Amino acid sequence: MNFSSKLLEQAVAEFGKLPGVGQKTALRLVLHLLKQPDVDVSRFTEALDRLKREIRHCSVCHNISDNNICEICAALKRDKGLICVVEDTRDVMAIENTGQYQGVYHVLGGLISPMDGIGPADLQVESLIKRLEQGGVQEVILALSATMEGDTTIFYLYKKMKDFGVQISTIARGIAFGGELEYVDEVTLGRSIATRVPYERSIA
Amino acid sequence: MNFSSKLLEQAVAEFGKLPGVGQKTALRLVLHLLKQPDVDVSRFTEALDRLKREIRHCSVCHNISDNNICEICAALKRDKGLICVVEDTRDVMAIENTGQYQGVYHVLGGLISPMDGIGPADLQVESLIKRLEQGGVQEVILALSATMEGDTTIFYLYKKMKDFGVQISTIARGIAFGGELEYVDEVTLGRSIATRVPYERSIA
Repeated sequence: MNFSSKLLEQAVAEFGKLPGVGQKTALRLVLHLLKQPDVDVSRFTEALDRLKREIRHCSVCHNISDNNICEICAALKRDKGLICVVEDTRDVMAIENTGQYQGVYHVLGGLISPMDGIGPADLQVESLIKRLEQGGVQEVILALSATMEGDTTIFYLYKKMKDFGVQISTIARGIAFGGELEYVDEVTLGRSIATRVPYERSIA
Repeated sequence: MNFSSKLLEQAVAEFGKLPGVGQKTALRLVLHLLKQPDVDVSRFTEALDRLKREIRHCSVCHNISDNNICEICAALKRDKGLICVVEDTRDVMAIENTGQYQGVYHVLGGLISPMDGIGPADLQVESLIKRLEQGGVQEVILALSATMEGDTTIFYLYKKMKDFGVQISTIARGIAFGGELEYVDEVTLGRSIATRVPYERSIA
């Protein structure tokens, strides 16, 4: 592109580094910000700077937090004996949005992926094992993606945790509610037939 | 959404104000920035802050510029007798990218739109008339969008400029190069038949 201004070009280049934002979108966003009042743009950049400067990770579950211990880990009514292991903050938010879960979390910060050079040492695995060693945990739910990396991580964690006498479970996989059979992929359909549940349990 | 951090929530809210960026995209972008090194995020916010603080508009053509007079208006080889009137900076960039145009520009900063409460006084119309009054202009090309607002603005500018003895033209409208007839809308097709050009001229 043919920029009339170096300042504009730099701002567009920075926006263009964001995932899924191309040059044209970046230009549109920058020109939009340029039209806004100064105070709005300051608030935008200040929010980012503060986030980057002041953000913490919970020392217990490693979720993004404003404090040393996150609100969920600090809440008295949360069941500390039930730990849900997830990949990142977005998964915590998705599960919290269901309003169904009353336990606590453990955020791994990624999944084991030899292709990307990510091994167990790059994830919060040690601290998960420490939480089990401290006792008081009855069950660990592995709520990871149904991908190769997710399955690899589940298998690794299972081997690490199986001797602690703790119940280890994974979230149920099958056909989504509202899903039509003919559009479901064969692997999911095949597995959901193999792992069928008695009708009485399915309506529990 | 259920944020575990106020800082995160604020940053996502700010990103979510950008056009075409929803809550989920905003969260994805913020989490991406959170994973980047501090220096990268500083460069991002600094580029925006500097842009907002230091950007100028060319005092001649009102295009976005780093200086008081933009590079195009300052260039000796540009034909100052030919002014192309456009809506905003993006149009200047699009025309510059063609590499076909050797005149200068005049950026209106918008189009007349009674629906949005934008009248001629909100646009850089006065300064365009001043440029004509100063003399030396042979032709004004009105390169505005083929919309209701564009046509209204063209008509308004034409009336304002017609007594200056300057050639006033609009960019050619018709079927795009590579366009197939059957997919062209009726208005464009009808108009392009009515405004047909002799073959000898079309290949000039």
